Amino acid sequence: MSAAAAGAPPAGLDALRAVLPAHVLVTDPARLEPMRADKSGHRSAAAPLAIVEAEAASHVQAAMRWASEHGVPVVPRAAGTGLAGGAIAGGGELVVSVDTMRRVLDVSLIDQSCVVEPGIRNAELNELLAAHGLWWPPDPASRAISTVGGNIATNAGGLLCAKYGVTREWVLALDVVLADGSLISTGHRTVKGVTGLDLTALMIGSEGTLGIVVGATLKLRPIVEGAVWTVGAFFDDEATAAAACTAITAARIRPAIMELVGIDAVSMLAAYSGQPMEGAFVLVQTDDLGAAATSETVAQILAAHGGRVERTDDASRSDVLVQVRRQVHFALESFGTVLVEDIAVPRSRMAEMFRACHEAAARHGVRLAVTAHAGDGNLHPTFVFDGEVPSDAVWACANEVFAAGIALGGTLTGEHGVGILKRRWLIDELGERQLALQRAVKAAFDPQGILNPGKAL
Amino acid sequence: MSAAAAGAPPAGLDALRAVLPAHVLVTDPARLEPMRADKSGHRSAAAPLAIVEAEAASHVQAAMRWASEHGVPVVPRAAGTGLAGGAIAGGGELVVSVDTMRRVLDVSLIDQSCVVEPGIRNAELNELLAAHGLWWPPDPASRAISTVGGNIATNAGGLLCAKYGVTREWVLALDVVLADGSLISTGHRTVKGVTGLDLTALMIGSEGTLGIVVGATLKLRPIVEGAVWTVGAFFDDEATAAAACTAITAARIRPAIMELVGIDAVSMLAAYSGQPMEGAFVLVQTDDLGAAATSETVAQILAAHGGRVERTDDASRSDVLVQVRRQVHFALESFGTVLVEDIAVPRSRMAEMFRACHEAAARHGVRLAVTAHAGDGNLHPTFVFDGEVPSDAVWACANEVFAAGIALGGTLTGEHGVGILKRRWLIDELGERQLALQRAVKAAFDPQGILNPGKAL
Ligand SMILES: Cc1cc2nc3c(=O)[nH]c(=O)nc-3n(C[C@H](O)[C@H](O)[C@H](O)COP(=O)(O)OP(=O)(O)OC[C@H]3O[C@@H](n4cnc5c(N)ncnc54)[C@H](O)[C@@H]3O)c2cc1C
Ligand SMILES: Cc1cc2nc3c(=O)[nH]c(=O)nc-3n(C[C@H](O)[C@H](O)[C@H](O)COP(=O)(O)OP(=O)(O)OC[C@H]3O[C@@H](n4cnc5c(N)ncnc54)[C@H](O)[C@@H]3O)c2cc1C
Repeated sequence: MSAAAAGAPPAGLDALRAVLPAHVLVTDPARLEPMRADKSGHRSAAAPLAIVEAEAASHVQAAMRWASEHGVPVVPRAAGTGLAGGAIAGGGELVVSVDTMRRVLDVSLIDQSCVVEPGIRNAELNELLAAHGLWWPPDPASRAISTVGGNIATNAGGLLCAKYGVTREWVLALDVVLADGSLISTGHRTVKGVTGLDLTALMIGSEGTLGIVVGATLKLRPIVEGAVWTVGAFFDDEATAAAACTAITAARIRPAIMELVGIDAVSMLAAYSGQPMEGAFVLVQTDDLGAAATSETVAQILAAHGGRVERTDDASRSDVLVQVRRQVHFALESFGTVLVEDIAVPRSRMAEMFRACHEAAARHGVRLAVTAHAGDGNLHPTFVFDGEVPSDAVWACANEVFAAGIALGGTLTGEHGVGILKRRWLIDELGERQLALQRAVKAAFDPQGILNPGKAL
Repeated sequence: MSAAAAGAPPAGLDALRAVLPAHVLVTDPARLEPMRADKSGHRSAAAPLAIVEAEAASHVQAAMRWASEHGVPVVPRAAGTGLAGGAIAGGGELVVSVDTMRRVLDVSLIDQSCVVEPGIRNAELNELLAAHGLWWPPDPASRAISTVGGNIATNAGGLLCAKYGVTREWVLALDVVLADGSLISTGHRTVKGVTGLDLTALMIGSEGTLGIVVGATLKLRPIVEGAVWTVGAFFDDEATAAAACTAITAARIRPAIMELVGIDAVSMLAAYSGQPMEGAFVLVQTDDLGAAATSETVAQILAAHGGRVERTDDASRSDVLVQVRRQVHFALESFGTVLVEDIAVPRSRMAEMFRACHEAAARHGVRLAVTAHAGDGNLHPTFVFDGEVPSDAVWACANEVFAAGIALGGTLTGEHGVGILKRRWLIDELGERQLALQRAVKAAFDPQGILNPGKAL
């Protein structure tokens, strides 16, 4: 074990100071403190050693060279909005932050691509692209506050990804600083390319365990044309609501957004907002040229399943419906501390997964509200509890929820990542042989194991 | 070096025979002979040791266990339509073929996914899916004769991929037999999932160097609705034709197909077909709900650039236009042996790349006809020569063409793969550090280096 891992400050911080501009190496305790947490609700036992607030790839390289030499564990970090604890740093660790590397270096309308530094916020980039009529589709709900590099490191999804795909589909090339401080360029700026192994795809979703993204060439698309239509519907029970969503997919409709808010979440929202509402809520948005006609078919299907349906293209009315989905998180937070889980199942098993959540919650006597990106079978069972720390009952219930998800052919995390939260369930999903292989791949990138140790793998 | 690699038949073929049904292990010289080639025009010096004509994953596992134990190099093979020599087997090598594993195990309309064995032909699968109103978009021109597993192993592209993406975007999960014979399941059957490193993406395009795909869960989409409109246009010169294509992209139009056939290719096609035609040809197809209106805009842009334009939604007339593109390959073959190259450049550099090809061809006095998937900047410079083997002048010209492509920000291969053809140019594109990393990743999968040695990496 390195000295650093044992908690003692490594002898060589001066050596790092010597190769970085003074303001880039941060050791001010007040600034180190926030590094102990992200948005997962977890917190490390102690503050990290220091932060390298990189302003250029060369700073990241210098930090990694130093860390390699001294065997110091490094936690890559961007905006710290992660829900899996991946960016949390503890005692003896060095945070390498790309938070302030936010330049847009190139936007090409013809190539429909752009070159950015990793720290730029998703929404900020998309505002800039909109002026060119272009769009980078990954759309986590955190788009205003999370970074493109963080989206890449977690392969972020969002409301639109059933139709427009997750982050992986929108990245062409990456500049990556490896554990030893060398800088490589993976992928290609062209739309197609199959030279060598696809390390770009491998980096995406690797949660800072393989290297640090210091630049990205993103694939863009033109902004989608046409009006947007919104349909909202309340159902008496979740199984019927899920069946209605399934029927929409089976009708070969590809909505831009299809969300399902469970009954408990709706009733907490009603209490929070003071607006009367009841039942399970389905939100569907259609876009592109056929939006109006498609939304009519959607409305018919929802009504045929017993939904109380509203359909609109009025922007403000549409916003009211969309807010039912968007406000859930805040509603839940008004009732206690929340722990947002994140599993994905085949779309056809969604109703069963809702049921499994409720049964597990009842068995353990915990409060669990469920929402789902119904378009892609990604559920967010969300625990709401008193106090700061989840009880054993919450963890036991979470355990059963995961097991149920895997049993239904699902996966441990649809979009938030493994981080520190889900490591103990990893082997159930991957199996021993694959986990060993994943660790061997990790070792090929990072033989000393200094990049985000204890996370994801 | 293993005994096998040195050319001597390994002692243990009997041990392999003992664990496989008799008809699965093929040693008949007449059946071994075709294994020496694929569609690259290359040929190995000697026939391989044997073929395992796997009918089940367990046969592949037995073969790999045996090969690991005896240090015998293995060449994974499917339909053998590859253009990069990746499936070519030589003396002392064992071919593991999945050609006859062609079952479709599941099709789910609701999950919009299917589970298949790797040997099924792309077109055969799509015929079956069409009955469900579903579609697997990867569409290499070889779709009737190439396999889904081969498409995955090469990350195949095609005419439609600028709009609908390459193979990587349409694969959810894989069953893979590793070098040591163990079987792992990568990815997930859900639309989203970020558990662990994305070994599914890494397998795609790995050309048989990391493992053997024995099963795949494919992501499907509904068949695209609406009429298809086709626009064809002849231009006096290639630079203008390329500029017209660029203008279409810049107008934020996303055609289903956008192809550019160079002047020399058109004139060879005129001679081959006996139909008078002249100039550089641009083919654009639009689909989906706005197809008619979009194709009209396309026609206007092409005309504004001086194109002699025809626009139609008549199926037979459309076919005439499409055949200009589809027949090029056969036209070129009627003039000599062809060597199809495959580079991709940013769309904005396409005109320059056409020019670089012609300049290099003139310098070396070789015949070079160029076509391009203009929608994604993927060019196929195709050498046409007498005799069976390319001359030194052809290779020297190819070398310059690759160098020009990389200098324009391009990549060595847009869709055909590296195979044995492009290994010597690999380091130019990847750089030394990345190549070393790629080899380390390869070693994590295949420490003995028995999977497709001498290919791709
Ligand atoms: C209100 C809210 C809503 C959210 N909604 C969604 C959602 O809809 N979909 C979704 O997918 N997520 C969502 N998230 C989670 C989070 O926003 C995403 O995971 C986001 O991609 C993280 O970006 P970040 O910049 O905050 O990264 P951080 O939290 O700083 O880091 C996340 C992980 O990536 C690594 N990392 C960060 N930058 C780099 C880099 N440059 N190179 C290498 N590794 C790096 C870190 O080590 C860590 O493991 C939400 C979070 C909040 C708080
Ligand atoms: C007329 C013609 C047109 C073509 N058009 C296109 C085109 O438009 N776009 C395009 O991308 N390609 C095209 N190709 C090239 C070729 O068809 C593709 O590369 C195809 O994907 C190869 O599939 P296959 O089944 O023939 O594989 P093979 O040729 O048998 O193998 C190709 C490579 O994949 C590996 N491999 C095969 N199966 C497996 C498996 N199950 N597991 C692991 N590795 C495996 C092999 O080792 C080899 O390296 C064309 C070829 C021809 C002859």
